[in-house]
Amino acid sequence: MLALLLCGLLVNTKPTEHPAINVLLDQVAAWNTGNLDGFLVPYEDATTTTFISGVNVERGFGPIRDRYRKRYGNSRETMGQLRFSELSLVADAPEVAVISGGWELTRGKEVASGRFTLVFRKRGNTWKIVYDHTSAAPPPAPAPSSP
Amino acid sequence: MLALLLCGLLVNTKPTEHPAINVLLDQVAAWNTGNLDGFLVPYEDATTTTFISGVNVERGFGPIRDRYRKRYGNSRETMGQLRFSELSLVADAPEVAVISGGWELTRGKEVASGRFTLVFRKRGNTWKIVYDHTSAAPPPAPAPSSP
Repeated sequence: MLALLLCGLLVNTKPTEHPAINVLLDQVAAWNTGNLDGFLVPYEDATTTTFISGVNVERGFGPIRDRYRKRYGNSRETMGQLRFSELSLVADAPEVAVISGGWELTRGKEVASGRFTLVFRKRGNTWKIVYDHTSAAPPPAPAPSSP
Repeated sequence: MLALLLCGLLVNTKPTEHPAINVLLDQVAAWNTGNLDGFLVPYEDATTTTFISGVNVERGFGPIRDRYRKRYGNSRETMGQLRFSELSLVADAPEVAVISGGWELTRGKEVASGRFTLVFRKRGNTWKIVYDHTSAAPPPAPAPSSP
């Protein structure tokens, strides 16, 4: 019972202790060493896994993986450095978790940023991403050309 | 037992039967009669309710309501006609539901569209939106000016 109470306290006071948050921290670590396949591990390998970027919808792990490979390659140089911020547990059910957060990706002089909403499902002892809605800030306006 | 089996079948074959889907259909009906307050009813009146539009984050029912009022007024003319499409139940737990869908808003000659992800929590007998992540297609490029 004491253990249960302690768990309750931990859940209430430290929502970032949810294991799905740790999955995201591992993802960032994989990305920042140029390990795209490692980054992709948490996405559930299923045809129903869904990735929404802005208004573009990809369905299935294969198309999602291919989109990442095409956009970001598989090296530190092409992938750049990723940072997640403001991770918060929006919903927490026994088999479902929803995490919201901000992302920032620096590649050379280019910095992109945005928000994401991830739906995780518990599969055995692991938490898998079954749905990802990502949106990005519009790219900065081009510098005015000199007259 | 038969009832349970039937319920299971209904859940599997008709995911759109989830009550949170009906909340969305009621929202669209309210919007399309110019009833902004009716549209806003399902958002939980709490300081934690979160609305993300692209990368902009609003927290609290009050700021969310004010943003809608400022952008869309409270009449059929200013609100236009809203349509939701491809509503799907991404996650379904006893107290939590996640709904994904597309939206299209027509105001005069202007048509905007995008995607949304909504997290509902069951409060008593009703389902309330506690988190909304919406993203929009970029506006069409301006027509090339004549030379």
